[in-house]
Amino acid sequence: MVLQDRAKATRGAALLGAAAVFEEHGYGGATLSRVSEVSGLTKGALYFHFQSKEDLARAVIEVQHRIAAAEGERILAENLPALTKIILMCRGFGLQLVDEPVVRAGIRLTFEATAFGPPVRGPYEDWIAIMEQLTERSKSELQIRASIDAGAFARYLVASFTGVQMVSGVLTSRADVMQRIEEMWEILLPGILHEDFHENPRTLSRLISTGLPERPAPTAP
Amino acid sequence: MVLQDRAKATRGAALLGAAAVFEEHGYGGATLSRVSEVSGLTKGALYFHFQSKEDLARAVIEVQHRIAAAEGERILAENLPALTKIILMCRGFGLQLVDEPVVRAGIRLTFEATAFGPPVRGPYEDWIAIMEQLTERSKSELQIRASIDAGAFARYLVASFTGVQMVSGVLTSRADVMQRIEEMWEILLPGILHEDFHENPRTLSRLISTGLPERPAPTAP
Repeated sequence: MVLQDRAKATRGAALLGAAAVFEEHGYGGATLSRVSEVSGLTKGALYFHFQSKEDLARAVIEVQHRIAAAEGERILAENLPALTKIILMCRGFGLQLVDEPVVRAGIRLTFEATAFGPPVRGPYEDWIAIMEQLTERSKSELQIRASIDAGAFARYLVASFTGVQMVSGVLTSRADVMQRIEEMWEILLPGILHEDFHENPRTLSRLISTGLPERPAPTAP
Repeated sequence: MVLQDRAKATRGAALLGAAAVFEEHGYGGATLSRVSEVSGLTKGALYFHFQSKEDLARAVIEVQHRIAAAEGERILAENLPALTKIILMCRGFGLQLVDEPVVRAGIRLTFEATAFGPPVRGPYEDWIAIMEQLTERSKSELQIRASIDAGAFARYLVASFTGVQMVSGVLTSRADVMQRIEEMWEILLPGILHEDFHENPRTLSRLISTGLPERPAPTAP
């Protein structure tokens, strides 16, 4: 048991050190020597857990996706309209990109993955499936228009969010990512909202900037 | 003169070979030996023009951006409404991704750039500037609503298009990229179009699928 705990702690330290190094230098510039230095682990300890730089990179991507998915599940479990959940998830992911080095490293590596191996598909597929369910739900809650194709909207939302945070990373190192996410909703919402929403611009603007509705959650039919 | 022509031809062959290798293997998997094999050039000839793999990668990115920009300028020069030009440019870029190996390689390298050096900002900045001008123009042509912030829309459109083609690349190797671009417009247009456009769904659907308007171009005020 003590050995297991120690192995877990070593693995955790390796992942944190790797995240810091990948975040700063990218996949190409990162070395296992630097990871061993930053994490305070011997190379032997590092190699015991991870056979190669690619191994370590894929583990960081996995941890990042787990952190993002946990926040997603927390939001899913709340008693809120589905559209609010969609907006909160995008905001939550944006905040993680600002606050969490492991998330920043994981996303950087997800984009860079094609430079060192097969592309990382799983996170996109997971988010598209969640967003499609929430979009269907939101249509039945009369917040998203019935004419919106939930699958097409979910695919577009995930792709578009990906582009927004990626381009914000390239142009401003994500300093403006939260503002760009709000602008995304300012442009998207008028085209997808159910007719009722158009009547209340205050509700709309509050929803965009905080993710929170002013009115109590409607009950699904 | 003959020497200059030969140097140009060698450089062109190197770039074509590099594009093929980068497109297939990504930055990490590409080697200068493979480029010399594919392009039929000696390593000496290759190194005469390009000092390193990074050098060659940045040259491929530059050529790709030049090809995309040339298509953009061709569309800009046409006598068409600005909104049509915006839609045609996105379609044109999508078709280049399907048809042109150099464009596919350049875009792959643009995304992978952070894995081997500083991110590539120029193309994003160029496209945002062009799209902002066209959006302003389209507002004055009464095709895009006056309330749309041209700068915010241009930034969002470029980021969102980037995400759409990137995720299409990851999930389907871009087999569905043209359909995903049409879906982008189906979701975006209802929220940004000037009131007049809502009256004619056929015009809208033709615009989305072909980029071409049914009505003659309006004259700017």
